[in-house]
Amino acid sequence: MVISYQRLLSFTTDIFRKIGCPEEDARTAASALLSADLRGIDSHGVARLIGYVRLQEAGRANTQPTIRIVHETPSTAVVDGDSGLGLVVAPFAMQVAIEKAANCGTGWVAVQNSNHFGIAGYHALAAVKKDMIGIAMTNASALVAPTFSIERLLGTNPIAVAVPAGQEPPFVADLATTTAANGKLEILQRKKEAAPLGWIQDKDGGPSTDPHALKTGGALLPLGGDRDHGSHKGYALGAIVDIFSAVLSGANYGPWVPPFPAYVPMPTGMPGKGIGHFFGAMRIDAFRPADDFKHHMDNWIRRFRSATPAPGHEKVLIPGDPEREMEAQRLIDGIPLLTPVIQDLKALATKLGVEFPL
Amino acid sequence: MVISYQRLLSFTTDIFRKIGCPEEDARTAASALLSADLRGIDSHGVARLIGYVRLQEAGRANTQPTIRIVHETPSTAVVDGDSGLGLVVAPFAMQVAIEKAANCGTGWVAVQNSNHFGIAGYHALAAVKKDMIGIAMTNASALVAPTFSIERLLGTNPIAVAVPAGQEPPFVADLATTTAANGKLEILQRKKEAAPLGWIQDKDGGPSTDPHALKTGGALLPLGGDRDHGSHKGYALGAIVDIFSAVLSGANYGPWVPPFPAYVPMPTGMPGKGIGHFFGAMRIDAFRPADDFKHHMDNWIRRFRSATPAPGHEKVLIPGDPEREMEAQRLIDGIPLLTPVIQDLKALATKLGVEFPL
Repeated sequence: MVISYQRLLSFTTDIFRKIGCPEEDARTAASALLSADLRGIDSHGVARLIGYVRLQEAGRANTQPTIRIVHETPSTAVVDGDSGLGLVVAPFAMQVAIEKAANCGTGWVAVQNSNHFGIAGYHALAAVKKDMIGIAMTNASALVAPTFSIERLLGTNPIAVAVPAGQEPPFVADLATTTAANGKLEILQRKKEAAPLGWIQDKDGGPSTDPHALKTGGALLPLGGDRDHGSHKGYALGAIVDIFSAVLSGANYGPWVPPFPAYVPMPTGMPGKGIGHFFGAMRIDAFRPADDFKHHMDNWIRRFRSATPAPGHEKVLIPGDPEREMEAQRLIDGIPLLTPVIQDLKALATKLGVEFPL
Repeated sequence: MVISYQRLLSFTTDIFRKIGCPEEDARTAASALLSADLRGIDSHGVARLIGYVRLQEAGRANTQPTIRIVHETPSTAVVDGDSGLGLVVAPFAMQVAIEKAANCGTGWVAVQNSNHFGIAGYHALAAVKKDMIGIAMTNASALVAPTFSIERLLGTNPIAVAVPAGQEPPFVADLATTTAANGKLEILQRKKEAAPLGWIQDKDGGPSTDPHALKTGGALLPLGGDRDHGSHKGYALGAIVDIFSAVLSGANYGPWVPPFPAYVPMPTGMPGKGIGHFFGAMRIDAFRPADDFKHHMDNWIRRFRSATPAPGHEKVLIPGDPEREMEAQRLIDGIPLLTPVIQDLKALATKLGVEFPL
C-alpha cells in the first residue's frame, strides 16, 4: 500500500492536533516525523505515530509545553523541553543553536526534559539552509551493552552531521553508534530471518543471530561488534552522545533514560529530566568564506564519489546519498506502508475521529 | 630496555632543540610526543621522533614557525601553523579554543598548514584542567578505503573527547575511526602474526589477514569493517574528521594529505596547505554549574564501571582507564623501548651530537 506524502502529512498533522498540539507544533511534529519515511528510515517515521500518541495518553509527553531556555552564554544554551514531543522541542533547540551561530560563529544547545525526536539527520539539516554545519544527537533508552558487559546501559544514541556543499547536494551523515539500528532487527523479525553475527549478543554476552534476543536479556552491540573489531570505540561514541545530551543538560542518562513504549515502566531513581539531546550549528564563514568552502566541499564529494569501486559495487556513496535519492523518489511515488502500520493508523483515525486517507 | 620518563623527556627535548625548535617549543613538542609513550600508545610516541626529524630535514616541517590566527569570530578561529610541527601547533590552537570558551562558552579552532600532532587525547585533555570538555581531531595521509572502494582516501582520522569528572578521573575517549589503528598492524608485522578478518582488505577489496597488505595495494577498513557491520558509519566518521580538519580550515583533505614518512613523495595537485586539525573546548558552566555536572559525571562513571561484566571479563572499562593506569605505572617504572627504536634514537643522538641516556 502506498500513500502520497502530502496526504500522509495532512493525516499526521491532524493526529498531532487531536492530541492537543497547537497548530504550528502539529505541523512541525508531522514534518519532522515523516522526514524519516521520506528518507527511507521507515522504523522511525509514521510507524511510530501510535507510540507518540500513547506517550501523550500516558501523561509522559506534554503536547502543550512551555519550551524555554534555562541557561545561556553567547555560544551555548540549555533548553528545557517541558516534557514536550522531541519532534517539537528539537526544532526549537536547533533554531536557538542557529541564532547563536549567526551571532558569534557557533551555537551549542543541550536539551533536558524532552522525548524522542525522530531522526537526527532531519534536525542537523536545518542548519545547512543557513550555510552552517549542523550537528544533532540524542540519547535513548538502554538497549546496548558496553564492551565486556551483559548489561544494557546505552541507547542506540545517533550522531548526525550535515555539511553544505556548492553544486553538490549536502553531506549528511546520520548514524546510530551501534553495529545495526534496532529498526533493522525489527525488519528481520518480520521476515523471520537471522541477524548477522556481530549485531547482538545473548543474555550471557555470547554471540547471537536471534533477532528476538533483546526480549530474552540480550543486547545490541556497539559499532565495531566485539573488542577485536573496535566495539570499545562504538561504546565510547555512544557514551559521548549520552554525556553531551544528558549529563550536560540535566536529562536522564545511561540506564535511566525513559523508554519509548508507554507500557514499559519508567526506570527508578532517575537522576534527571526526560530524554536529552545535543545540537550544534557552525557558520561556515566563521572559518572561511562560504564560497571557498563550498568549492572545496564539491571537490571533496566528487573525489570520493569517483573513487575506484571494489568489484561487485557500482560506486562509492557519499553519506546522505541513499536517503536523498529515496526522498526524491518517495515525494513522487508516495510512501509505502506495511499492513500492521496501516492497521495502527486506521485504529488511531477511528479513535481520534480523523479520516484516514487510504 | 626501560628508560625513565624524565630522562627520555630531556633527551627528546634536546633533539627538538637541535633541529631548531626554540626552547619552549622543544619542551612543548617533547611533552606532547611522549604523552603517547606514557599512555601506552607506543606507535605514536618516541618511536616516531626520527620521523619528525626527517620531516624537518626534508624541509617539510618548519621548526621556527610563525603560528597565527588568520580568521576569527567570538567562538571560532582558523590557525595557520606555518608548516610547524603539529606537536607545537596543536597546543597553540587548543589554547585559542580554551580562551574563546572562557569568553563566550565554547571555542572551535580549525588548523591549516600543520603536521602530525601525536595523539589526539593529549590535546583534548588540555581543556579538562580548565573545567571544560576538550575535543581534538586530525586528518592524516590516506590509508583507509571508503566502503565499496579499493582506493585509499582517508587517514585513520582520530577523534578524542575528554570530559572532566569530580572525584572520578576524567572520561577520555581517543579513537581512530578505523577498526584497528595502523600501529596495531605494525605490532603484528613485528610478531609475524596474522591480522583478524575485518581490519584490512587486499588490493581487490577482498578480505585479508596479511598485516603487510597495505604494501601491496590493500587498505585499512573503516570502523565497522564491512557494510553489514556498519563500515559506512566508520567511513562517515572519518569523513567528518577530514571535513572539519581540512575543508573548514584550508588544509589538504582526502588523498592529498601529506604523508608522515619524509621519503614518500608529496601528492600532486594538493588543494590546501599541510595537514588539518580541529579542536573544541566547551566550558562546563556554559551549560550547568560545574559541580552539578561533576556530580552527575561521577554517577555516570560509577554506574558504567559497576555494570555486570560478561563471563570471562573482570569489569567494564571507562574510556581513558587503560591509558591512565599505564601512565601511572610508566611514570614509576619507566618507558620500555624496543631494540629498533633504541637503534634509531642512538643514531639520532650521534648525528645531532646529543647524549643518549641509556
